Amino acid sequence: MAKPLKLDPDRLLPAEDRTRAIARELYREVAELPIISPHGHTDASWFSTNANWSNATELLLSPDHYIYRMLYSQGVSLDALCVPSKAGMPATDPRAAWRTFAEHLYLFRGTPSAMWLGHVFGEVFGFDVALDGETADFYYDTINAKLASDDFRPRALFDRFNIEFLATTEGPQDDLSAHHAVQASGWPGRVVTTYRPDAVIDVEHEQFHGALKIFAEKTGEDVYSWDGYLAAHAKRRTDFRAAGATATDHGHPTARTANLSKAEAAALFAKILGSDWTPADAELFRAQMLTEMAAMSVEDGMVMQIHPGSFRNHNGGLFASHGRDKGADIPMATEYVHGLKPLLDRFGTSTALSIILFTLDETVYSRELAPLAGHYPCLKLGPAWWFHDSPEGMRRFREQVTETAGFYNTVGFNDDTRAFLSIPARHDVARRIDCGFLAQLVAEGRLLDWEAAELAFELTNGLVRKAYKLDRA
Amino acid sequence: MAKPLKLDPDRLLPAEDRTRAIARELYREVAELPIISPHGHTDASWFSTNANWSNATELLLSPDHYIYRMLYSQGVSLDALCVPSKAGMPATDPRAAWRTFAEHLYLFRGTPSAMWLGHVFGEVFGFDVALDGETADFYYDTINAKLASDDFRPRALFDRFNIEFLATTEGPQDDLSAHHAVQASGWPGRVVTTYRPDAVIDVEHEQFHGALKIFAEKTGEDVYSWDGYLAAHAKRRTDFRAAGATATDHGHPTARTANLSKAEAAALFAKILGSDWTPADAELFRAQMLTEMAAMSVEDGMVMQIHPGSFRNHNGGLFASHGRDKGADIPMATEYVHGLKPLLDRFGTSTALSIILFTLDETVYSRELAPLAGHYPCLKLGPAWWFHDSPEGMRRFREQVTETAGFYNTVGFNDDTRAFLSIPARHDVARRIDCGFLAQLVAEGRLLDWEAAELAFELTNGLVRKAYKLDRA
Amino acid sequence: MAKPLKLDPDRLLPAEDRTRAIARELYREVAELPIISPHGHTDASWFSTNANWSNATELLLSPDHYIYRMLYSQGVSLDALCVPSKAGMPATDPRAAWRTFAEHLYLFRGTPSAMWLGHVFGEVFGFDVALDGETADFYYDTINAKLASDDFRPRALFDRFNIEFLATTEGPQDDLSAHHAVQASGWPGRVVTTYRPDAVIDVEHEQFHGALKIFAEKTGEDVYSWDGYLAAHAKRRTDFRAAGATATDHGHPTARTANLSKAEAAALFAKILGSDWTPADAELFRAQMLTEMAAMSVEDGMVMQIHPGSFRNHNGGLFASHGRDKGADIPMATEYVHGLKPLLDRFGTSTALSIILFTLDETVYSRELAPLAGHYPCLKLGPAWWFHDSPEGMRRFREQVTETAGFYNTVGFNDDTRAFLSIPARHDVARRIDCGFLAQLVAEGRLLDWEAAELAFELTNGLVRKAYKLDRA
Repeated sequence: MAKPLKLDPDRLLPAEDRTRAIARELYREVAELPIISPHGHTDASWFSTNANWSNATELLLSPDHYIYRMLYSQGVSLDALCVPSKAGMPATDPRAAWRTFAEHLYLFRGTPSAMWLGHVFGEVFGFDVALDGETADFYYDTINAKLASDDFRPRALFDRFNIEFLATTEGPQDDLSAHHAVQASGWPGRVVTTYRPDAVIDVEHEQFHGALKIFAEKTGEDVYSWDGYLAAHAKRRTDFRAAGATATDHGHPTARTANLSKAEAAALFAKILGSDWTPADAELFRAQMLTEMAAMSVEDGMVMQIHPGSFRNHNGGLFASHGRDKGADIPMATEYVHGLKPLLDRFGTSTALSIILFTLDETVYSRELAPLAGHYPCLKLGPAWWFHDSPEGMRRFREQVTETAGFYNTVGFNDDTRAFLSIPARHDVARRIDCGFLAQLVAEGRLLDWEAAELAFELTNGLVRKAYKLDRA
Repeated sequence: MAKPLKLDPDRLLPAEDRTRAIARELYREVAELPIISPHGHTDASWFSTNANWSNATELLLSPDHYIYRMLYSQGVSLDALCVPSKAGMPATDPRAAWRTFAEHLYLFRGTPSAMWLGHVFGEVFGFDVALDGETADFYYDTINAKLASDDFRPRALFDRFNIEFLATTEGPQDDLSAHHAVQASGWPGRVVTTYRPDAVIDVEHEQFHGALKIFAEKTGEDVYSWDGYLAAHAKRRTDFRAAGATATDHGHPTARTANLSKAEAAALFAKILGSDWTPADAELFRAQMLTEMAAMSVEDGMVMQIHPGSFRNHNGGLFASHGRDKGADIPMATEYVHGLKPLLDRFGTSTALSIILFTLDETVYSRELAPLAGHYPCLKLGPAWWFHDSPEGMRRFREQVTETAGFYNTVGFNDDTRAFLSIPARHDVARRIDCGFLAQLVAEGRLLDWEAAELAFELTNGLVRKAYKLDRA
Repeated sequence: MAKPLKLDPDRLLPAEDRTRAIARELYREVAELPIISPHGHTDASWFSTNANWSNATELLLSPDHYIYRMLYSQGVSLDALCVPSKAGMPATDPRAAWRTFAEHLYLFRGTPSAMWLGHVFGEVFGFDVALDGETADFYYDTINAKLASDDFRPRALFDRFNIEFLATTEGPQDDLSAHHAVQASGWPGRVVTTYRPDAVIDVEHEQFHGALKIFAEKTGEDVYSWDGYLAAHAKRRTDFRAAGATATDHGHPTARTANLSKAEAAALFAKILGSDWTPADAELFRAQMLTEMAAMSVEDGMVMQIHPGSFRNHNGGLFASHGRDKGADIPMATEYVHGLKPLLDRFGTSTALSIILFTLDETVYSRELAPLAGHYPCLKLGPAWWFHDSPEGMRRFREQVTETAGFYNTVGFNDDTRAFLSIPARHDVARRIDCGFLAQLVAEGRLLDWEAAELAFELTNGLVRKAYKLDRA
């Protein structure tokens, strides 16, 4: 007999009665607030074309490395899960892949993916039985039927999810046509882009030279000279702002910054364009570019997001067969105190600049990030990120950051996801965990109830709006 | 008046009522399951000879650096505790040493040693008064009398402890005679060995050259040539498998691996056999040997355990006077992401290989180990180890590992102990903490009760059996 | 209408009923014990002159970088807060600065500063309305009036706070006249100094050469020769002991130690006195001096405190305009295992030496510090420090340290503050958190109630007295 699927209305709130009662009150006031998603990886063309998605496997499984990495780690092949390789989509029947997924769903017990999937299945699709091997076909057919309906087109879900603001992420090579189409369509949904120039900054990125070529075409600048390269960035930042962007994003291996003289920077740029650069040159150039981007942000007001610390494509064999973004990015120890100093020595006392720092290395929460954000006017802390975007991860973030940085040097939640259907689930988890944390402070006499209520609103809506300059844009 | 000794039947379960009730249910189902101890340091000759142990001090105090290090840290001399130095056993009366221990038992308050000792005293020896200065002699006499009885011989305790599987650890120099004697004895207890070749791999180990000589004798191979050296390993691995081993164990200072060409490896081996190697050479050779051991594991199916990160014999003065394993091993920061990459680039996509990773550096739980194990088919995570094999340490392990790696990329508990009498205590602590962790997930709506029950069994019995290939061996 | 200010009598005790009841019992027994403050930065002249403080802003805001850094991080200028720059005190009206502070008090929600300020306002000044923009003037006037009264003179507060021992910190340049005046005054309060020689040890300190000159004058030694320099230290240590000091304090960037030969040390000293030293030389000299100080401590019995890991004056712009100690010190990753080994190889087995280790890098609690302190007789662990001197920070300290080091290798609490009025608040927070931690151990069956009661006393009074040798001095 199929097992029931039923979401606990008090899920993720603290177990202790008195604390739970406080948390429940706080959550009730923020549960239905609109979603502001200032950083993520959804596809703008979903909202420009508003086309129906095809099927459960292609929407929920094949593209989501959060999901298939777990089955892969237990010996299931990516082919069996319809994950495309460099040779294209495997011949696997999508329904068979869905069954394999369903049979392995138990692997996610205790993980945030289990919570997100439960929310998507129960709240978005309305299932009341759990997914497992027995119900796999029922799920597959039901989901596909719903995905083919008007109610499950991207714009309908955007409205149903009560999304007020959704940022995507594009590179300097992108023509932003999907965003322009959204803007021209008359649809009132606010879907904007974010400027993420990594591909034209990181010479170790396999697409660097190709990206640079498109960068030149899109801007008409001589991107092979230092001045032209910087001018091209400035032009594209203007393009992105015109498409609604309020922020840039930088996914470097480290948080290192540099502050070279113009002549030194130009010479370094010339070197990395050639063939005799070293990894140290590549790193120094990335470091210098963070400072150049900060200088442009001081001028144009774009908020900088720095997302360092991922060892990309760690699995050499898998990278060779399947390429990037296949669940093989592994966090590394990341240093901020020395790394950010050159940039901060130049702009640290500025209140015109706003930098949001993220980390995959939780050891820096209390040691480096909270003290930095608790001092520098230009620094704010992004929420628990990626592997740490989870109940325990979010709790550790609040416990380790709040006492030094306070709540007001943080920026609310962002979901950072390409799994559009899970966006409400992710924001709901964050709201529940934040309300639970605030409730604990109240229960322990560390915060008053009305302060907690104000903070619950700030953590859900106020801080993100201010940090990403949503009301000025 | 003597203070009572009474174990709280709910000890280590969460304090909050509802969570505790859930935990109690879970624990009830796993409390009496047989003990599987796949990694430890008991002495196989105990089970081959089945001789009585001598006295309380020689069994429980002199050999247990978990215990005497704490008294040493407070200024008690090792001589006063009957800890042998290089000059042999000190002249201290074992009874006097026991008294000194008893008078300092308060130092262990809040430590897992206090819990283990309480269990050993209360459950194994049946004391109902606490050990302190007043009861020291009563304890000493009672324990000695019991140790002299048939009920306290090693095999009787093995049965009473309900041990299903017990692995010891031996080096390539070992003739495995104790294991052969156990096997030949007709006694049905399953006591097996583990292949730990550190002494013939680590040229910085003070026994390296002596061990290598015995390695040659035991195998008849020319262990001073690269091919002969590898062949000797292969032979000894076969010997160890014949003595029941399912696993190897590698206690290196770091988790570094290497993937040299055969010529490079042979040249490096020749160098470390000479006298002009550097610490970097020693490290590179250890790194290369992890990859060589992985290659052999792919062939013979032995599970690899990697236990890195201990600075051995940190106290120079003590090492000079007392030698190794005297409680002066101190953990170091340990890096896995870059360290393991050469091995993983060679074998990372293999499902034939199984590597169990341990750490003394908790900062890598969420940052490195869980993401690695949540991706690579060949990687699993060993339980909280050594200093972290404790209630808080185990909780941190579950909290920091589960959300990214899931439960199914972990391998259950292992006690890693030479303190045989504490084995039930240690497994009991792990079962209680795991049930408490699962209960919290249930209480917070993150897991269903029947899922928690399945997981409690897996964490106690299922995962360890599979990870160490106990049913195939 | 003004919001009420009311301190929860159960604040910081665990929320769960049964645990809270245990904690309340424990706390009741230690709440009123005298304060022992063995490490801090109050001004001895307060107690020698016993003069009234001037006003709220100059006492509570301008000098307290714990406070004004938070407003600065949100864009409030230091000038607006009456924080002196190199050009002197800004022209801002102190009352206006106080108002600005009051209007931004919400920034501290969830931080220990909010708890300390609440205690100071409610308990020390007797306010029953909260500070905010509306009540700022009322607060300012009331505080100033009280500060002008006899009841709020330093000695009166010292008595009212029930302080039994208060250590300040002075450099080798200090003439200790304020301490001599306290001693000569007949006032029975025990206010003693601590020897902190950083300014004459750290050649990278901007005051190094000036400090060395005064060092020579104060001692009559040839401080520019290695022998004279060491003799000068010995002399000043004698002076400091005469002024009540029982301890030295060392605030180095790292925990590195060295053990050079006398000739090497003398040559290094000669080099750093010149102009061609490198940062590595400066670091090595600091490292060597920790070992030299340990050698002197073995002789004179002074307890060594090592406070490493702060990147001082990180904000280059602010350091240029405002100088040091302006809230811009940021913690760094700090290594102890290799760092301390040279010193420990020389003195590690000594029971004559006592070193108290602190850290700003919490990752070393369980990995390095607890194992080191749980082994070496000469090592003890200082309490959670600076950014971690907070409810969550203290809990992490106990959770991560206790299981390996035990309670008895720790040294009680110290407030490390220059904010004299907050001393009772800070000790009260520590007592509450410690009682809550002990209560949790009792509630989970990990500690007996009478053991917890003994430990509550030890953590409040017993351990600090022993660690700082207060009864021998």
